[in-house]
Amino acid sequence: MPLWYGGDYNPEQWPEEVWAEDVALMRRAGVNLVTVGVFSWSRLEPSEGRYTFGWLDRVLDLLAAGGIRVDLAIPTASPPPWFSLAHPDALTVTRDGVRLTHGSRDTYCVSAPAYREASLRITRALGERYRDHPATAMWHVHNEYGTPCHCDHAAAAFRAWLRERYGGLDALNDAWTTAFWGQHYSDWAQITPPRATQYLPNPAQALDFRRFVSDEMLAHFTEQRDLLRELTPGVSVTTNYVLAGWACVDHWKWSREVDLVAIDDYPSGRGMAAAGQTAFAADLARSWAGGRPWLLMEQATGYVLGPRKAPKEPGEIARHSLQHVARGSKGVMFFQWRASRGGAEQWHPGMVPHTGPDSRVFREVCALGEALERIPAPVDGPLAEAEVAILWDEEAWWAVQGPGLPSTEIDYLAAVEQAHRVLWRQGVPACFAHPSHDLPAYRAVLVPSLYPISDEAARNLTAYVEGGGTLVVSFFSGIADEHTRIRPGGYPGALREILGIRVEEFHPLDEPVELPEFGQATMWSEIVHLDGAEAVARYPGGGPAVTRHRHGGGTAWYVSTRLDDSGYARVLARAGLAGSGVPGVEVVRRQDLVFAVNHTEDEQPVPVHGTDLITGRPVGGRLGPGRYVVVRL
Amino acid sequence: MPLWYGGDYNPEQWPEEVWAEDVALMRRAGVNLVTVGVFSWSRLEPSEGRYTFGWLDRVLDLLAAGGIRVDLAIPTASPPPWFSLAHPDALTVTRDGVRLTHGSRDTYCVSAPAYREASLRITRALGERYRDHPATAMWHVHNEYGTPCHCDHAAAAFRAWLRERYGGLDALNDAWTTAFWGQHYSDWAQITPPRATQYLPNPAQALDFRRFVSDEMLAHFTEQRDLLRELTPGVSVTTNYVLAGWACVDHWKWSREVDLVAIDDYPSGRGMAAAGQTAFAADLARSWAGGRPWLLMEQATGYVLGPRKAPKEPGEIARHSLQHVARGSKGVMFFQWRASRGGAEQWHPGMVPHTGPDSRVFREVCALGEALERIPAPVDGPLAEAEVAILWDEEAWWAVQGPGLPSTEIDYLAAVEQAHRVLWRQGVPACFAHPSHDLPAYRAVLVPSLYPISDEAARNLTAYVEGGGTLVVSFFSGIADEHTRIRPGGYPGALREILGIRVEEFHPLDEPVELPEFGQATMWSEIVHLDGAEAVARYPGGGPAVTRHRHGGGTAWYVSTRLDDSGYARVLARAGLAGSGVPGVEVVRRQDLVFAVNHTEDEQPVPVHGTDLITGRPVGGRLGPGRYVVVRL
Amino acid sequence: MPLWYGGDYNPEQWPEEVWAEDVALMRRAGVNLVTVGVFSWSRLEPSEGRYTFGWLDRVLDLLAAGGIRVDLAIPTASPPPWFSLAHPDALTVTRDGVRLTHGSRDTYCVSAPAYREASLRITRALGERYRDHPATAMWHVHNEYGTPCHCDHAAAAFRAWLRERYGGLDALNDAWTTAFWGQHYSDWAQITPPRATQYLPNPAQALDFRRFVSDEMLAHFTEQRDLLRELTPGVSVTTNYVLAGWACVDHWKWSREVDLVAIDDYPSGRGMAAAGQTAFAADLARSWAGGRPWLLMEQATGYVLGPRKAPKEPGEIARHSLQHVARGSKGVMFFQWRASRGGAEQWHPGMVPHTGPDSRVFREVCALGEALERIPAPVDGPLAEAEVAILWDEEAWWAVQGPGLPSTEIDYLAAVEQAHRVLWRQGVPACFAHPSHDLPAYRAVLVPSLYPISDEAARNLTAYVEGGGTLVVSFFSGIADEHTRIRPGGYPGALREILGIRVEEFHPLDEPVELPEFGQATMWSEIVHLDGAEAVARYPGGGPAVTRHRHGGGTAWYVSTRLDDSGYARVLARAGLAGSGVPGVEVVRRQDLVFAVNHTEDEQPVPVHGTDLITGRPVGGRLGPGRYVVVRL
Repeated sequence: MPLWYGGDYNPEQWPEEVWAEDVALMRRAGVNLVTVGVFSWSRLEPSEGRYTFGWLDRVLDLLAAGGIRVDLAIPTASPPPWFSLAHPDALTVTRDGVRLTHGSRDTYCVSAPAYREASLRITRALGERYRDHPATAMWHVHNEYGTPCHCDHAAAAFRAWLRERYGGLDALNDAWTTAFWGQHYSDWAQITPPRATQYLPNPAQALDFRRFVSDEMLAHFTEQRDLLRELTPGVSVTTNYVLAGWACVDHWKWSREVDLVAIDDYPSGRGMAAAGQTAFAADLARSWAGGRPWLLMEQATGYVLGPRKAPKEPGEIARHSLQHVARGSKGVMFFQWRASRGGAEQWHPGMVPHTGPDSRVFREVCALGEALERIPAPVDGPLAEAEVAILWDEEAWWAVQGPGLPSTEIDYLAAVEQAHRVLWRQGVPACFAHPSHDLPAYRAVLVPSLYPISDEAARNLTAYVEGGGTLVVSFFSGIADEHTRIRPGGYPGALREILGIRVEEFHPLDEPVELPEFGQATMWSEIVHLDGAEAVARYPGGGPAVTRHRHGGGTAWYVSTRLDDSGYARVLARAGLAGSGVPGVEVVRRQDLVFAVNHTEDEQPVPVHGTDLITGRPVGGRLGPGRYVVVRL
Repeated sequence: MPLWYGGDYNPEQWPEEVWAEDVALMRRAGVNLVTVGVFSWSRLEPSEGRYTFGWLDRVLDLLAAGGIRVDLAIPTASPPPWFSLAHPDALTVTRDGVRLTHGSRDTYCVSAPAYREASLRITRALGERYRDHPATAMWHVHNEYGTPCHCDHAAAAFRAWLRERYGGLDALNDAWTTAFWGQHYSDWAQITPPRATQYLPNPAQALDFRRFVSDEMLAHFTEQRDLLRELTPGVSVTTNYVLAGWACVDHWKWSREVDLVAIDDYPSGRGMAAAGQTAFAADLARSWAGGRPWLLMEQATGYVLGPRKAPKEPGEIARHSLQHVARGSKGVMFFQWRASRGGAEQWHPGMVPHTGPDSRVFREVCALGEALERIPAPVDGPLAEAEVAILWDEEAWWAVQGPGLPSTEIDYLAAVEQAHRVLWRQGVPACFAHPSHDLPAYRAVLVPSLYPISDEAARNLTAYVEGGGTLVVSFFSGIADEHTRIRPGGYPGALREILGIRVEEFHPLDEPVELPEFGQATMWSEIVHLDGAEAVARYPGGGPAVTRHRHGGGTAWYVSTRLDDSGYARVLARAGLAGSGVPGVEVVRRQDLVFAVNHTEDEQPVPVHGTDLITGRPVGGRLGPGRYVVVRL
Repeated sequence: MPLWYGGDYNPEQWPEEVWAEDVALMRRAGVNLVTVGVFSWSRLEPSEGRYTFGWLDRVLDLLAAGGIRVDLAIPTASPPPWFSLAHPDALTVTRDGVRLTHGSRDTYCVSAPAYREASLRITRALGERYRDHPATAMWHVHNEYGTPCHCDHAAAAFRAWLRERYGGLDALNDAWTTAFWGQHYSDWAQITPPRATQYLPNPAQALDFRRFVSDEMLAHFTEQRDLLRELTPGVSVTTNYVLAGWACVDHWKWSREVDLVAIDDYPSGRGMAAAGQTAFAADLARSWAGGRPWLLMEQATGYVLGPRKAPKEPGEIARHSLQHVARGSKGVMFFQWRASRGGAEQWHPGMVPHTGPDSRVFREVCALGEALERIPAPVDGPLAEAEVAILWDEEAWWAVQGPGLPSTEIDYLAAVEQAHRVLWRQGVPACFAHPSHDLPAYRAVLVPSLYPISDEAARNLTAYVEGGGTLVVSFFSGIADEHTRIRPGGYPGALREILGIRVEEFHPLDEPVELPEFGQATMWSEIVHLDGAEAVARYPGGGPAVTRHRHGGGTAWYVSTRLDDSGYARVLARAGLAGSGVPGVEVVRRQDLVFAVNHTEDEQPVPVHGTDLITGRPVGGRLGPGRYVVVRL
């Protein structure tokens, strides 16, 4: 099985006469898989129950004839206008009670019965029609699940979810601390999604609603998946995760339900920052997939986030792609094949840009296709072993987005990204783990700002340290339980014992302060009492800032402030986690291959020798600026 | 009668087994009064007309047994979820027409009949049950009144209020200048609250709506008060004022209706800025109370406003408390006794912090309790005489928040705070007065940016100057009448004669300019013609900037621009208002006591000699850094 | 016919006893035309079909007796409150579905039948009553048309407009690229205004909605106009254009329907910037009027936009007025005669300020009136010939306000203003043209950032260059068709051939770069391939930045980045468009007169000799600081 290569292909955006050129160009580029139909619902079912599959038949036949397989989409992410008109109760309602209108994508309520029925109907129709088509390689359900709704359907479903979670209202009132501000619920009917209210919302209600939204969307996914499995037992069913800051999905939980973990990756930075973010995204995907192969379902030939869009610099498309393949992606896919002429994302770059095939971008796309043909796809099974795990928990992220925290500057994603970036720059192989995962295999576990933590997770971390592990905990971790109720008796409640400290007060910083050895401390500080731990660094006022505690067979570090990358790297070095990598030069092992990518503008040494599978040339321990090689061990 | 000491106590947030520890800790801290039940409605009346008083009986019995009295709350600030469900028409509606949902606090329409009835029902039930309970010391109606509503109930009530105010539509149309943009009302039914409209709203309508909201909330208060007076004739009825920037209450008017003025004080600054704001808040309360005792109902052991929350620095809790007591507070109360584990304000600090009683904060709370026991409470009657009055008028503040002013930077609160701060730093005793108050007792009256001014108030100020007073008027004062209609013929219409000037044009400044002697002038300038006054300072272009006018037996000063603190202080000095105090060292007389508080980090001289009531030690004219003493005259 | 002089006169804002003084002051100021009744609907028709014309009769009689003519308003811009109450379906609905309320101005839906009927009713009533009144000089329909509505009436009208435009749904789906995100419309009923939706809206739908809003408001205008023409065949019917950034009118199209182009001009800058903006506005008006006379319907004696309002500096009122008259305004009109005491715009300055007639402003108003009496009005017919045309297209502006462009910093208005400013400072007479206009008369045509361009317009520009013209095109022009569909094959699609280039990629700039000769390039850069053109300047990386191409008999320049004013001026100089004017000194020819205005603070040379019509004094080639003269050729 070769690596997949391709992207979203939306032939309905173009006149039929373009299709033949598309297939010819795909073949020139080495494309062997395209995602078809993500936004085709209105073209496939132009009115309720009436189908117009002819055009799609022709597209699939054309592709099959060209040797290109299809990741066939279930187009539920964008219901047709006729559906909205017939079922206005299935349109999204905002927290202010505004019922949104079609005309964009994602305008649906995942709890609306009409939407659920219509989803299954189009799924069945597509499944039945194309299950035996030779092009059909995979099912792609929906697109970037992420629409919370606050309507009455959502309210009813939320209540049902809460009944399941809490059993009775007493447990719910307790978990949500409804005694605060006197919002005790005496009847399930009183509970709503967190709609607009007069003052601050209840943080536990807000967090449970986000959990519910994730589960409710997952229920929608699994309904389609189950139907597709029934119709096409052998074909993988996946959906593409969006990694945006507004992500409303618990990816650990979802990854147990998809046949193939698939992500969309759009870095917000440029240059080296983008390379680091790419590694971060790919390591997340690899971790969600349980250390086994997965798929980069979307990336772009350009940068699309922020106020300015631009093509990626020469070489970046390939380097980013290799970063994903090195970490276990079964292919390299883009959104989208041909840049659209119109529509809201007409400026989203394509594999074939507006300029057409006579362009640097398309030439790089072709060269990349050629390179990928020479790299074996990962085989099913473990990819490589990571030395260090970073805890990642979407629920913790959501909790930090709640109201009234001691500082508005606590940024969960930034904290996790920093931990990853510091390891990545030193060449320390890292992965991500959920707080309840089995941890003993890791040399160290990093815990960035994990505000809520369940008793079970706290026990898990304790066992890890007692069993000899090295734990590096950053400020604002272990404070609350899974209902964001603060653990009393001194912070960080659940981790006090293993850290050997007791934090009495939080003092967010207005101005940075200097720590000896570890440099600038910003944003946050704490009054830390040693209770078994020793102070590794102290604040200018004399209180402990960084501590170390031998507990059982292991060691638990605590960083009570935000350090910059070099300061955090020094903590890791003190904890024995210094790597020997050259910053910006990535060397990643995947099964029997070693990938090396030089993101810098200089030639660099790399500990890789052998023959580059891509060029067939020898690799002798050095890598030119911007170059990459793949060598078999 | 000792000073009250305590805070909001919300036992329903904790399991019953914690209550005994609470009372023990309260006794350790010297607590003798707690506010109970502010947010307990849903626990006291779990469904319409059904009461569950048992738990509150037990709490009050426990407290009474511990010698702790209760400020018993009427919990109308947070209706139960069942109430909202049964009476959706009693939920708040925003100006955009969004009907808010329960789940937070303050979600009600004070004009909704169902809410008014429910309020009286729970008031009667509590009054009847606890009127004879030995713990009952005071009634605390509602909490921080401040929810405007734009629904049809509010519209009907607004119209009734306007009929009462204006009698007929002709008077209203005239007062509101509805001729502008052709919004002449020909039927009362056409008048609504200032709901969302296409372009700028009518400023007079907006101002009257804010007056109405204050009066309507006051009507709700007086309904409960009258019922409680009937049930418990001897017990004071109060409510706690919120001093926030969004304050929607005319505190002068309300202070005539409460049995005891009570305020919540949460400074937005830190350190010396917080100390100044504390003095400001306490002087406002003292003034609203007519120069007689009042109560600090809420403060916090930490800073809660702004992007970063933190505990107050060592000593600040006591110093802030003393500032209030020195100005006539009958006690020192906090929100809340025990920091909550959950809920929207779980990070609001408590007297007992999350860390528990073994903490600096709780130790300071105990020490403060001990100190307060040694300070006599103020007796009913005048507290002290202020030399200088600063005019304070919430209606003027609201008017400056209206649309279309010549500059968006005019900031009424900042102007009043500056006047107070400059006096406070020099040790000049200050109070606040309403423009219509009797003024002759004051050496001087400061008038910061009093945009609208009624004819009556203008006559009052004129009489004050003619009778020998010193008036210091700042820019943008006296411009408009009480309907914000500009007084024609030259600014500042109502004050032209006493100021001896005529202002022809306003020129808001893009960049600061320098004035000789008075330093930097920012934000605002005017073209001032002398009409009897003399120029004390001139703009670089030669026009008068600061003027003085002898009028009748007095003198009226005019400052036509915004000066910084030192410039404004120099104007006051020229007007004979220089004080001899040391900045940051506060010496306040209250009846037969003198309070001295050193907010600086150095030892300072103080004109106080005698024995410190708190420590029993002699006071000899000096005060250590951060220290405070109370001496009997 | 003398020049008109006056302003909006709203006597209903004042007691009747003020009216006589108004007329006396108008006569003192030389006022000969006032706009009456713009916001008088509620005073003229206090309930449906009942009229109270008595007061207006008296006003018009008074004015007529004073020799002052009236621009009589049709007051449809501000329906009375009774109308809103009777027809809530005629109130504006926002894209979020919020139905706005009266209380301001402009709250109506121009598509609501009730509003259309009511408009015609009041128009007929006014027309019939005043058609023979001696004061009636002109009809002034509505005021600053500009209220889009998203209600169901608007939706129905939008659909009807789309049917007319596209004929069938297939054409619409194609034009709107509804295939993107699967929003294919299968029934007209599915199409709505661009209401709130979940994610990015469709840019083509958004653009068509703006076109529709312009046309729909125009239909409202022409209905009144036709009725008035029928009632008063000889009287001009106009409406006043608002030039604000939110302008929602296609002024080229409207200008074919009004009897007299009339604009409101409120510069946002101060000093020299305001003078440049004034010239810009007047040149737009002149161009919209087809190079023939028009009318400045509103300006102000002060600056009213931005955070700070202030009177104009001494002399500015006259200089700005002369700029308009020099460019063909038939008069000088202000909003409003007397500054209002109350209402939302009480701080909008008047000809008679709050201070009253004893004021610098009123003295300048009187002096201006005197000066205008000595300047002949323009006669009907061409005013002067411009050498250079700048393309101006409101549709292009709207398109650039759409979602998802490659940079959020592309600013159409700023680009056009820069082109005009650079010519203005050099004294090069400029006008504006629509892309489809006849261009051969111009020496050069400037094309700032004209994102969409129709095939017809592209052919027009091509013919212009081939016929010998000089075209200067700026970045992000010619990219899309009139449905904002990107023209494939390389940017700038429609202009590639005449520019002799092919742009492969856009690279918005994070930081400025330096170009040799042309200075700083900011915000935007491109990868330009020469395809017949030569590179006049190159980016630091070597790619062409500014190019020139001889095509047919003419030359086409391309500027692929944003230059500052001096850089852009150097491009124009290289293209042979350098002027000989002194910056800030304006010399404008109008028929047989030459106007010269010195906006600088120094005496300046001017190429003008003769006798100043205003002062009767000789003009000898020099002009004092801030001075202006008018000389007959």
